[in-house]
Amino acid sequence: MRIGVVAPARTVSRESSARLSAFMALTYPEHEIVFHPQCYLEWGHFAGTDEQRAAAFLEYANDPAFDAIWFARGGYGSNRILDMVMPKLGSAARHKTYIGFSDMGFMLGALYAARVGRVAHGSMSSGLGQHDEGVSEGWVLGWLIDGDKRGLEPALADGRPAAAFNLSILNALIGTKYLPDLTDHVLYIEEVDEPLYRIDRMMFQMAHATQLKGIAGVRLGAVSAVKDNGEAAGNYSFGETIDQMILRWCHDMGVPYLGRAEIGHVRLNRVVPFGLL
Amino acid sequence: MRIGVVAPARTVSRESSARLSAFMALTYPEHEIVFHPQCYLEWGHFAGTDEQRAAAFLEYANDPAFDAIWFARGGYGSNRILDMVMPKLGSAARHKTYIGFSDMGFMLGALYAARVGRVAHGSMSSGLGQHDEGVSEGWVLGWLIDGDKRGLEPALADGRPAAAFNLSILNALIGTKYLPDLTDHVLYIEEVDEPLYRIDRMMFQMAHATQLKGIAGVRLGAVSAVKDNGEAAGNYSFGETIDQMILRWCHDMGVPYLGRAEIGHVRLNRVVPFGLL
Repeated sequence: MRIGVVAPARTVSRESSARLSAFMALTYPEHEIVFHPQCYLEWGHFAGTDEQRAAAFLEYANDPAFDAIWFARGGYGSNRILDMVMPKLGSAARHKTYIGFSDMGFMLGALYAARVGRVAHGSMSSGLGQHDEGVSEGWVLGWLIDGDKRGLEPALADGRPAAAFNLSILNALIGTKYLPDLTDHVLYIEEVDEPLYRIDRMMFQMAHATQLKGIAGVRLGAVSAVKDNGEAAGNYSFGETIDQMILRWCHDMGVPYLGRAEIGHVRLNRVVPFGLL
Repeated sequence: MRIGVVAPARTVSRESSARLSAFMALTYPEHEIVFHPQCYLEWGHFAGTDEQRAAAFLEYANDPAFDAIWFARGGYGSNRILDMVMPKLGSAARHKTYIGFSDMGFMLGALYAARVGRVAHGSMSSGLGQHDEGVSEGWVLGWLIDGDKRGLEPALADGRPAAAFNLSILNALIGTKYLPDLTDHVLYIEEVDEPLYRIDRMMFQMAHATQLKGIAGVRLGAVSAVKDNGEAAGNYSFGETIDQMILRWCHDMGVPYLGRAEIGHVRLNRVVPFGLL
């Protein structure tokens, strides 16, 4: 298998790529990982200009020599290249797997909406070794290379089609053509670095989104690094827990809340392939 | 004129109401302002439970003795009462003006979508005197009581229908039934307390929202108290200014960018009645 790495949002360090190459050489010596030089560009907030990031993604996605595109990093920016890349994906792009999460939800959502390739929510290539870990990145490689299902989110065993998003990214897709049709899908969501009032507001939008009326249910991944909701300034705490919030909004939405899930901006971020397994 | 004040989001101090009552007694002695006791309730993040806030709004909105509802304060929470209040608004609610902004955009949007009453974006009652000011609150009262147009946003003179929103609230309405049809409207937006990457992400959603395809143009109000975009942690600055961002997204959206506007979380927040003047 030949895996290509591009960075449609923020820039990546050469050190993180070296770590991953070393890991591949040890663990999967017969497989190849190739980092597009675009990963190391820097332009303001981004790993190169919109044009550079779009060109790198298109180059690898349309290259039949790659079997999979593993996104390098999130952090904001992949939404800015959607209009540029989506109309230009050719047949080679349709026979590939795309994997990443967080801001890459824009890519996953748009690709799945266009039914281009196999799309999966999973950890990113630059995450390996960042915290002397690498379990989640190992799950991605095991699934990509060997079809190993041990890294998949356990609830996928229910046999229903699935999709997974960072809640902020899901929200930003709502009302646009890049949100895929998720009818009958179990929707997995996760969030990081937000105060409770914003998480509640995002759940409101999910619950009221016309496009999401047909989903089969919701599973909630990690909601990590929750920010202060004003308590530090002397305000009362929000008044509801994350679990109370998701139960209430799922009730309003009229869909079952199916429980927690092992995904998110945490050490163990399991793989969720979109659609049916 | 009899003006009723309710607080569908966060709680209000009795001191702010006393300030406003004193101002009214001096400036508009023949008119009356009535603060619903719900304004002072506290339940977690909110001015009372969802049920209490919904009941207070419905009581005043459906009371023919009130000519206008002036929202007391934003801060998050009015979205949580929409499903409860919107189906219960009676004929008295249709002959009223509703004014506020920020989180109250949920109320304004839902009311305008249902064509209930006269809806306007303007400062809130608890803002008077908060910073030894009160110009914007004076504009609201002058417009409500005397039909004084001096406090209106000057660009409204273009004669086109208008609507104004905090960008975060507009985003949260997109894809839901509470976003009104804004075809042929000039859309005024403002934002506060956000880093540039989030403002850019919100403009992406605005630009790609199917429901907003028919708007006549965009005007940008104050974008105030912009948060650090990562520079403090040593990252590059975002790479684009607010004006570059809005120009780019309006171009992508295919609608004219019409320039800046005098609205927002700033000292001078002019009144923007929704629809035609």
